[in-house]
Amino acid sequence: MISKLIKNISEKNAPIVVGLDPMLDYIPENLQKQAFEEYGETLKGAAEAVLLFNKKIMDATADLIPAVKPQIAMYEQFGVEGLRAFKETVDYAHEKGIVVIGDVKRGDIGSTSKAYAVGHLGKVTVGSNTYAAFDEDIATVNPYLGTDGIKPFIDVCNECDKGIFVLVKTSNPSSGEFQDKEVDSKPLYEIVADKVNEWGALSMDGDYSNVGCVIGATYPEMGARLRKLMPKTYILVPGYGAQGGKAADLVHYFNDDGLGAIVNSSRGIIAAWKQEKYAKFGGDNFADASRQAVVDMIADINGALGK
Amino acid sequence: MISKLIKNISEKNAPIVVGLDPMLDYIPENLQKQAFEEYGETLKGAAEAVLLFNKKIMDATADLIPAVKPQIAMYEQFGVEGLRAFKETVDYAHEKGIVVIGDVKRGDIGSTSKAYAVGHLGKVTVGSNTYAAFDEDIATVNPYLGTDGIKPFIDVCNECDKGIFVLVKTSNPSSGEFQDKEVDSKPLYEIVADKVNEWGALSMDGDYSNVGCVIGATYPEMGARLRKLMPKTYILVPGYGAQGGKAADLVHYFNDDGLGAIVNSSRGIIAAWKQEKYAKFGGDNFADASRQAVVDMIADINGALGK
Repeated sequence: MISKLIKNISEKNAPIVVGLDPMLDYIPENLQKQAFEEYGETLKGAAEAVLLFNKKIMDATADLIPAVKPQIAMYEQFGVEGLRAFKETVDYAHEKGIVVIGDVKRGDIGSTSKAYAVGHLGKVTVGSNTYAAFDEDIATVNPYLGTDGIKPFIDVCNECDKGIFVLVKTSNPSSGEFQDKEVDSKPLYEIVADKVNEWGALSMDGDYSNVGCVIGATYPEMGARLRKLMPKTYILVPGYGAQGGKAADLVHYFNDDGLGAIVNSSRGIIAAWKQEKYAKFGGDNFADASRQAVVDMIADINGALGK
Repeated sequence: MISKLIKNISEKNAPIVVGLDPMLDYIPENLQKQAFEEYGETLKGAAEAVLLFNKKIMDATADLIPAVKPQIAMYEQFGVEGLRAFKETVDYAHEKGIVVIGDVKRGDIGSTSKAYAVGHLGKVTVGSNTYAAFDEDIATVNPYLGTDGIKPFIDVCNECDKGIFVLVKTSNPSSGEFQDKEVDSKPLYEIVADKVNEWGALSMDGDYSNVGCVIGATYPEMGARLRKLMPKTYILVPGYGAQGGKAADLVHYFNDDGLGAIVNSSRGIIAAWKQEKYAKFGGDNFADASRQAVVDMIADINGALGK
């Protein structure tokens, strides 16, 4: 799967991913109204608003972007109907040829991780049939439970040509509380990185592994060092834009081949119409604002990379 | 919420929780057939089989058990329909007066954790309405992202009288890979335990905190030590029975007040009918087998506790 993601990135010359993390207040009033008129101010109405919003953003940006990263929490908050919108978002992205990184941060003991792996990336058996329940291409995974929580995901990566990004160093302010603790004279996130290398060797796909990792844009020095420690690991980089990460800082997340990292922006793209910079588009043209924000983000990052 | 759980435990004299983690092969053929006849061998058919199974087990055990712990992965593997069965399981437990511990192991950066907290424990706003999407009473939470990933859950605990159990030392074989690493001359799980104490102080509910923790039955020495380090923290103890934890080992997870721990069994209860010990019940009476397994588990643990 990582080779498919790389192909998309190379063809579009865009090492970026759009985070589809819609909060209701990112969605222009007219679009909310349209959904609420059909389903009322209900969980189904909210889910419909989210789905309409996502589809319009994908319609406006599909030719520019290699991947989307729906954050499942934003759907899960609307319950079963929200998760239906998540699934329909995945399917719609696939229709458009966009790789889907499910930001689900799952992770559990072995038998339970297997159920997550099957549900998000693989196929579940019901009687004599099999079904891909959510069918993302790549899922983010939490490593706190160790190898037996990760292995079932790797098995599914190999069986179904899928990928995972393992949390190594997250973008949030308190990520250091545990992740930075020094263990055997190095920070815990480097211990996790060593394991990511080990796990990665079990699912190579060309020059890179289907086992990637997550390193926040907000910790560029750590990112630069981790890049060297994990040469064959693709890095998903959240935290650009709204969270404070800058393009110049991100250069060192890439390898000399110009590959190795994919930078996420969520709010900065999907709620672009609410920023002063893109206010001229107005709420009714929110998707055009998102398109312009994508164009600007690609130029910003490729500019820093000298591409 | 922890006081409500304690009340249930005390009234039923049963410091146990039944893990509703149904795999399809735990479900007797006749029950699967019944669901498949209605909905086919589909995700909806599988979800219906799971729901029927759960209801029968709760019908047979509700008077004996203070709580159930549905493992959401087992539902998520069947996609949207599976999650509908999860939600209906939560609602059915509530009708029976059973506390629901959602074993969801969620955890993310602050704004995202808020969405999980709202979706699983709190209320989400849609226009002028609010909805409890999944409405568990307590959720398990992964601490790897630190305080800003936990704080939104604590806020919801305080607003809606709910609880969380934070992973400290999990029951699986490879839990030590990261959790046992030595940091400042103590294992990482003790660093997490210190934080659980801090977080717990923010949501006290009687003698115990709404912020509990998870410590596997499979590491009894660590459990005994952690018990002393976290005197006001309720411990959810997975790993009894099928995973190898024994009642005698679990005594030290309890405080002198006879409280402080709740022991989970999943397979050992819900798939009891498949064990030689309970084979006499047969598949058609699987729920009676589960009831007998609950009776035996309570006797085993209360016996060890000298109750």
